Amino acid sequence: MVNHEPLWILTAQCPSTLGTVDVVTRSLAETENYIVSMNSFDDRATESFSIRVEFRPLSGTASLQRFREIFAERAAGFRMRWQLSDPDHRTKVAILVSKYDHCLNDLLYRYRTGELAIEIPLIISNHPDLQPLADWHGIPYFHLPISPETKSEQEAELWRLITLHQCELVVLARYMQVLSPELSRKLDGKAINIHHSLLPGFKGAKPYHQAWAKGVKLVGATAHYVNDDLDEGPIITQAVQAVDHSHYPEDLVARGQDIESQTLAKAVRYHIEKRVFLHGNRTVVFAD
Amino acid sequence: MVNHEPLWILTAQCPSTLGTVDVVTRSLAETENYIVSMNSFDDRATESFSIRVEFRPLSGTASLQRFREIFAERAAGFRMRWQLSDPDHRTKVAILVSKYDHCLNDLLYRYRTGELAIEIPLIISNHPDLQPLADWHGIPYFHLPISPETKSEQEAELWRLITLHQCELVVLARYMQVLSPELSRKLDGKAINIHHSLLPGFKGAKPYHQAWAKGVKLVGATAHYVNDDLDEGPIITQAVQAVDHSHYPEDLVARGQDIESQTLAKAVRYHIEKRVFLHGNRTVVFAD
Amino acid sequence: MVNHEPLWILTAQCPSTLGTVDVVTRSLAETENYIVSMNSFDDRATESFSIRVEFRPLSGTASLQRFREIFAERAAGFRMRWQLSDPDHRTKVAILVSKYDHCLNDLLYRYRTGELAIEIPLIISNHPDLQPLADWHGIPYFHLPISPETKSEQEAELWRLITLHQCELVVLARYMQVLSPELSRKLDGKAINIHHSLLPGFKGAKPYHQAWAKGVKLVGATAHYVNDDLDEGPIITQAVQAVDHSHYPEDLVARGQDIESQTLAKAVRYHIEKRVFLHGNRTVVFAD
Amino acid sequence: MVNHEPLWILTAQCPSTLGTVDVVTRSLAETENYIVSMNSFDDRATESFSIRVEFRPLSGTASLQRFREIFAERAAGFRMRWQLSDPDHRTKVAILVSKYDHCLNDLLYRYRTGELAIEIPLIISNHPDLQPLADWHGIPYFHLPISPETKSEQEAELWRLITLHQCELVVLARYMQVLSPELSRKLDGKAINIHHSLLPGFKGAKPYHQAWAKGVKLVGATAHYVNDDLDEGPIITQAVQAVDHSHYPEDLVARGQDIESQTLAKAVRYHIEKRVFLHGNRTVVFAD
Repeated sequence: MVNHEPLWILTAQCPSTLGTVDVVTRSLAETENYIVSMNSFDDRATESFSIRVEFRPLSGTASLQRFREIFAERAAGFRMRWQLSDPDHRTKVAILVSKYDHCLNDLLYRYRTGELAIEIPLIISNHPDLQPLADWHGIPYFHLPISPETKSEQEAELWRLITLHQCELVVLARYMQVLSPELSRKLDGKAINIHHSLLPGFKGAKPYHQAWAKGVKLVGATAHYVNDDLDEGPIITQAVQAVDHSHYPEDLVARGQDIESQTLAKAVRYHIEKRVFLHGNRTVVFAD
Repeated sequence: MVNHEPLWILTAQCPSTLGTVDVVTRSLAETENYIVSMNSFDDRATESFSIRVEFRPLSGTASLQRFREIFAERAAGFRMRWQLSDPDHRTKVAILVSKYDHCLNDLLYRYRTGELAIEIPLIISNHPDLQPLADWHGIPYFHLPISPETKSEQEAELWRLITLHQCELVVLARYMQVLSPELSRKLDGKAINIHHSLLPGFKGAKPYHQAWAKGVKLVGATAHYVNDDLDEGPIITQAVQAVDHSHYPEDLVARGQDIESQTLAKAVRYHIEKRVFLHGNRTVVFAD
Repeated sequence: MVNHEPLWILTAQCPSTLGTVDVVTRSLAETENYIVSMNSFDDRATESFSIRVEFRPLSGTASLQRFREIFAERAAGFRMRWQLSDPDHRTKVAILVSKYDHCLNDLLYRYRTGELAIEIPLIISNHPDLQPLADWHGIPYFHLPISPETKSEQEAELWRLITLHQCELVVLARYMQVLSPELSRKLDGKAINIHHSLLPGFKGAKPYHQAWAKGVKLVGATAHYVNDDLDEGPIITQAVQAVDHSHYPEDLVARGQDIESQTLAKAVRYHIEKRVFLHGNRTVVFAD
Repeated sequence: MVNHEPLWILTAQCPSTLGTVDVVTRSLAETENYIVSMNSFDDRATESFSIRVEFRPLSGTASLQRFREIFAERAAGFRMRWQLSDPDHRTKVAILVSKYDHCLNDLLYRYRTGELAIEIPLIISNHPDLQPLADWHGIPYFHLPISPETKSEQEAELWRLITLHQCELVVLARYMQVLSPELSRKLDGKAINIHHSLLPGFKGAKPYHQAWAKGVKLVGATAHYVNDDLDEGPIITQAVQAVDHSHYPEDLVARGQDIESQTLAKAVRYHIEKRVFLHGNRTVVFAD
């Protein structure tokens, strides 16, 4: 009865001021781009404005072209950073893994079925273990071992591969390595990590063991952007799962895998659907 | 650090067409009304458009007055129904109850603390039992007994009281009576009922007993607008709670009370915050 | 620090009477089987008793052998049906699928990582589509097409394969075919189906489309034992997910896949961990 | 159809050893006490055992009397601490509050309807504000102001009142005062606090402001036993609620009130239904 049509997405962000919404909607209307849904938020805490619009160009590329021409100058007047996202575009994603495969398996499934509109030019790991899984999905797998001595070289190669393949997003799917501050900065706003705890509850290593020792009744997972402060980047989404006294640390590890996978996949979807905006160390997420 | 300011709310609804968002945002910008947050949705299924804007009049009543002047005519061109909501306005709510008091108690608490921005000019019941609770909150309580023979008279009196007190919303807080089609129509879009089941799972009487007999592992509650088809009005919000084999029907009744109260309170909040739009028999809800 | 040890599981079920728990625990204690955890429930509605014990045989097979000898006769006096489950045992599971692969993919992942202690001797489908997925996991895939004319033959072959491979459990992972009453009866208590709705909300075909038309705010999934009444077998577990006005039927289909997979996997785990007991058309589930 | 009968509850706890379950169930069976449901758990981490039995004395007080006689000596041999709970018993609860009334209001509602099988001999507060709410429920209200200088005197008076009224449980329903180590020790295992955060996430003051600054997407509440380490006592139960960018700290405060109330009420119910066992700094909770 109703069928999904592919919609273009416009996102923009700028300092708070009068007329921000208006300049966007007016420019779309004038160029015959039909707004299907829209969200905006003006944040008092950071005095910044974010907007996301899903729209249909009524006259196809002509509408888009005219919009770009008209809007570019107007947006500049508001110091807006803005982006038009083609519904046919597949975001290029590099996935970084270690030995755990639950998040990778989940992402590859959603990639394979088209649920996530992504391309995966490559998977990079510091271990060879997950090569067969990558192979079955036909994705190049790069084994880049790492040691304290080789960390900077390994990261240089990692960065070379990411840029070579023009990846727009890096997903740390239980990569288990802390990125250097330099690499973190390069990836600012473009790398998503899954932490297996409800930040800021249990930072660092073995959060499930910490959770067990504390006797918590809920374990959680946090997907966040990577920054140069370990486990402290801006949070995109979080989820929890109930546990009880019968669960030992190794049970929590097993139980947590489902919410880790789901939370990471949701964060990736939010990111590629342009639903996430950085306001300082916090995010605005126009979720659905 | 950040303090809440009272914001005006503009809501509008009309048939889908180009320029609906634009006419709203342009009119606000021209009259110096500052948009703080905004949601719009254009529904393919019903070809109708809904928008909700939270805004701050930069020049106070002057901004509002100018907006009303400019917008009235423009909106008419789009066949828009629209409404401006004053942040200082308290929606006048009539609460209808029977003997169960959990939903009433919850609503009165949220009323007393100001969490729900409502006035409650009166509580109406077909039983005298909940009078003391109304008294303690200083709210007039009308006991209107009902029997098959007196139903039409009782409803006439009920309607007289509701209109006399200029109530804008009627909340059936486990009222346990089916309204007549005539009264339902008069209250169209202005009366919220809580059904103690996940519609359309278990309609009619004793849904918890039906749920137990079926052996369900979740019980639910559904808040919906009243229409003339019992338990079938447009759904506003729903919630569930896990149950297990140790819960007999009377346990489900007890367990369900929390989600009934919360679900009804949430629906009332959505309604008075102008977050709910009727699109045929379905609702658009700009939730937070 | 604490490591999981493999535990034996004793389950028993019988009519309600005095001494049911005692005969179990006494027999275990006398034969030096150490109880680690235990649940029992005596159901007034069906006047039946169920018990589940996780235990460690202190003297290994000697403890187990002595328990079997002592308990068999005692249990008979209570008309108990009982079962001892070896922690090293992998339940043999036949998976039935059609074209949707999300549930299959999820089950195969949990099988491959050992999270589900199962063997999968075969996958059976009425379509050839999912053969590559089965191949990658090294599991024999049988394509048994079905049409109204060939249904009884197809089911005969299906039953032959299931018994030939000594399958203890049949999982309908979105099989999309209604089993005949005859086959349903043969599989009584030994076949789990996932229905993509919160039973009894939307039975039969296209429940997500029904859900959308109704405007529900939650969609659900129900894992239940198969019986000869379509979509009406005893419920094992259920889950829901929030949806909103922006989700069209095809979105609900996509959104529902996660909870379908998780709900089915949970039901399978409960079954193979001997946590589920049938009490008439309802289940007792000693969940963790 | 099925009606609830009042059941006796036996709870016991002792060091792990063979025969713990057996001595309980055998003693009940021999004295004609019918087990309706039962849970036991033997904890490797602390090498301690906990059991909870709901039962029906088939010969009334005679069964109970015989059980007490037989079991007392046997239990001593296992160094068991045990307790028999009469279904007619109402646990005497002292409630401590400050100025926030949402938890108090919720507890009083559940007390008034009998959902919580408690008596409330008194409410104690360091502020006079909530006196009217106590009055309406007919519960004595003691205003005990506190300052750094008078803390020890105030706590002495508090303790005197608690013991004078023979309170078995103290509930800190947003009391906002840190108890002294001395008083905490006296109340060990007998006082429940609600912390308005997911411990150990945000300890100390203003956790919602901390949560907002961190940009979390879930806020939580933790009910725990009081010990002499602030916000660190054994956790009984926890819950979360989703929030988003539109919620400022004052919104989180408001949003959190529901889960605070529900989480505290659930913990109180678990406690008075004898579902909670202390194993070191962790709890075993036989939840329903």
